[in-house]
Amino acid sequence: MKVFTTTLATLLLIAASSAQGQQARAEQGLKPMLPPDGIRTVAPALEKYTQGRLFGEVWKRPGLSPRDRSIVTVAALIARNQTIEMPYYVNLALDNGVKPREISEIITHLAFYSGWANAMSAVAVAKDVFAKRGIGADQVPPASPELLQLDEAAEAQRAARVAPGIVQYTTDVLFRNLWLRPDLAPRDRSLVTVSALIASGQVAQVPYHLNRAMDNGLTQAQASEVITHLAFYVGWPNAFSALPVAKDIFENRAR
Amino acid sequence: MKVFTTTLATLLLIAASSAQGQQARAEQGLKPMLPPDGIRTVAPALEKYTQGRLFGEVWKRPGLSPRDRSIVTVAALIARNQTIEMPYYVNLALDNGVKPREISEIITHLAFYSGWANAMSAVAVAKDVFAKRGIGADQVPPASPELLQLDEAAEAQRAARVAPGIVQYTTDVLFRNLWLRPDLAPRDRSLVTVSALIASGQVAQVPYHLNRAMDNGLTQAQASEVITHLAFYVGWPNAFSALPVAKDIFENRAR
Amino acid sequence: MKVFTTTLATLLLIAASSAQGQQARAEQGLKPMLPPDGIRTVAPALEKYTQGRLFGEVWKRPGLSPRDRSIVTVAALIARNQTIEMPYYVNLALDNGVKPREISEIITHLAFYSGWANAMSAVAVAKDVFAKRGIGADQVPPASPELLQLDEAAEAQRAARVAPGIVQYTTDVLFRNLWLRPDLAPRDRSLVTVSALIASGQVAQVPYHLNRAMDNGLTQAQASEVITHLAFYVGWPNAFSALPVAKDIFENRAR
Repeated sequence: MKVFTTTLATLLLIAASSAQGQQARAEQGLKPMLPPDGIRTVAPALEKYTQGRLFGEVWKRPGLSPRDRSIVTVAALIARNQTIEMPYYVNLALDNGVKPREISEIITHLAFYSGWANAMSAVAVAKDVFAKRGIGADQVPPASPELLQLDEAAEAQRAARVAPGIVQYTTDVLFRNLWLRPDLAPRDRSLVTVSALIASGQVAQVPYHLNRAMDNGLTQAQASEVITHLAFYVGWPNAFSALPVAKDIFENRAR
Repeated sequence: MKVFTTTLATLLLIAASSAQGQQARAEQGLKPMLPPDGIRTVAPALEKYTQGRLFGEVWKRPGLSPRDRSIVTVAALIARNQTIEMPYYVNLALDNGVKPREISEIITHLAFYSGWANAMSAVAVAKDVFAKRGIGADQVPPASPELLQLDEAAEAQRAARVAPGIVQYTTDVLFRNLWLRPDLAPRDRSLVTVSALIASGQVAQVPYHLNRAMDNGLTQAQASEVITHLAFYVGWPNAFSALPVAKDIFENRAR
Repeated sequence: MKVFTTTLATLLLIAASSAQGQQARAEQGLKPMLPPDGIRTVAPALEKYTQGRLFGEVWKRPGLSPRDRSIVTVAALIARNQTIEMPYYVNLALDNGVKPREISEIITHLAFYSGWANAMSAVAVAKDVFAKRGIGADQVPPASPELLQLDEAAEAQRAARVAPGIVQYTTDVLFRNLWLRPDLAPRDRSLVTVSALIASGQVAQVPYHLNRAMDNGLTQAQASEVITHLAFYVGWPNAFSALPVAKDIFENRAR
C-alpha cells in the first residue's frame, strides 16, 4: 500500500492540477512553485532565474505592491487556465493581503472576461485553498449585494461606442451589475481585466480597459510595472505586444 | 482505505480532467459543471450568474437550438484544450441530440483546425464518456467512408485564393477529404470551425469560414447567436473581436 | 484493491497530465500518443490520419530532420501548455537525438518566451521522463556556464529597435544572458522561439525572430517545413497566419 501511495503521490504531483503537491507546498508557506531541488533536477538555470530574478527582484520592485502583483499573477493564470500553478499563487495572494472576497470576485469577474470554463477551474482550486485555510462562507461576498453607484455619464459614453449584438448582456450583466459589485474595487477590477487581456494576447481591448483602469486610479508607473511583471508570467511576446498600445495611451492621456 | 479513497476523490475532483467528479455529475444529468454548492463556497455570485444567466437564459434563447449550442460549446472547449469541463459538455451534447458519430467527427475535424494535441485530449475524454454510456464501435464513423461530392467550382475558387506552402495538404487532406466526410454535415463542420476560430482569438480566418458557414446554411441570426453564446464560454474579449468581422460579412452578403 | 487500481488507472489515463498511461507508452518506445485502439474507439478517421499522414508522412518529410521536428513539437506543446502529450514527445525528442541538456535549455528559454507557468509544467514532465531514463544531474547544464560571445553589432541593432519599458530585463537577462547560454545552439534557440510564437498565434514577433533564425542558420526550406509541421500540431489557422509573414521575410531577404 505504501509503495502504491508513493507512486500515486508522484503521479498526482505531475498531474495537471497537482493537488497534493501544491497543498504540501502551500502549507510550507511562501516557497517557489516547484521545490527548488525539483526544478534543479531538470533546469538549474531556470531555478536560478526563478530565485534570483523573479522572486528576488521582480516581486520586490517598488513600482507595484506585492498585493497588486498577486492580483495580476492570479488574473493571468486564470486567463490562461494554468491550474497547476494556481494553488501556489492563490495562497501567495492571500498571504499578500488579497482578501478571500476579492479572490471570489476576481474569479467571477473573469468568468466574463476569460470564459466560464476558466472560472470553473479556478473555483475548484480556490475551493480547496479556502478549505485548507479555514475560510468559510462568511468571508465570500453574497450573490446579490447592494451595488456601487453607476457613473451614468461614463456608462452612456461606453454604451454609445459599442456595436449592437451582445450589447444587451454587456450593458445589463457586465457594466450595470458585475462592475458595480462592491467586494472588488473598480481599480482592482480594471487591474484584473487588463492583466487577463495581456495574458491572452488580446491587445485589441487593451486601450479601452487600460484607459478605464487609469480613470479608476491605476497610475502610469503602475501600469508599466504590470507589463514588466507579466513579461515573466505570460511570456515576453505578450508583454511586447502590449507595450506600444500602452505607450499610445500614456501619450494620449498626457495631452 | 476509506479515508484514502475519499482524499483521492477530492484530489481527482480538482485534477485537471477531474474524471470522477465529472462522471458523477454527468450521471445526474443536466446539472451545472461543478455542483452548485461547490461553486457557492467560493463565489455565490458566479453560481447565480451560472444558474440565472447562462443556463436559465443563454442556453434557452430561441436563435440557436440546444443542439447547435452544444456543438459550439464543445468546439470551443476543444479549441482551448479545456478538458476539465469537457466531460460535462460532451454528455450534454449527446443529451441535446448530437450523435456519437458527430462528436467523433468534431474531434477529428479539430485535429486540423486546433491542433493534434487538442484532439488527442478530447479523444481521451470522449472515450470515457462513450464507455460510460455504452456507445460502441458501431456508432462511430468508419475511417474511410464514401465521401460527399466535391463542389468543384467552390473548391477551385478556394484553391486559387490560397498562398503556396502547405497548399498540398490543405487541398488533399482538408478540402478534398476531411470536409467531405459524410458523418458531420458541412454546415455543422462550419459551425465547429467558426466556433474554434473565435474561441482561439483567430479572427484572421473568420471571414473565409463564416462566409463558408453561411453558404453551407448557417443563417445570420444563428451566426449572431453563436457569438453571444461564445461570449460566455470564451470570454467577452474574444466575442468582441469577432463582432466587427461578422458585421462586415453580414453587410457584404446583403449587397 | 485490483478494481480500485484499475479504476484509478483509467481515471489517471484521462487526467490532464496522464502520467501513468504516458509512462507506459513511453516505455514501449515510439508509439503514437494514445494507443491506436484507444483513438479508434472514438475516431477511427483520426487514428488513420495520425498513422498515415502525421507519423507516416509529415515526420518523414526530408525538409526537416526528425531532431528538428522534435524541437519544434516540444516547443509548441510547452508554448500551449499541453502537458498531456508532453511526456510522449519529450521521450520522442530524446530518441531523435535531442540531448537532455538541450531539453533543459528549451524549457528555460520558453520560461521567458511562453511564461513561467508553462516552463514549470514542462519541468514537472521532464523531471519524470529524466528519472525514468536514468538521466542524472551530470547531463543537465549548470546554472551559470561560460557564455557564448555576444555579437555586439547585432545586439546594438536590436537594442536600438526596442521601445523602452521592459528594456532592461530584455537586454540584461534575455539577449546578454539567456541567448548566450552554450547548451542550446543559437539556431536551435531561434527554432524554439519561432515555433512558440507560431504556436501561440503571436505573429507580431515572428518577423524579428524568423530573420534572426535565418541569420542563425535556419534555411528557407527548413522554415517552410517548420510551418507545415506546425499546421498539424497547432492547427491550420495558426500556420495560415504565419504563412504570409514568412513569405514577406523570404522575399525581403532575397532582395
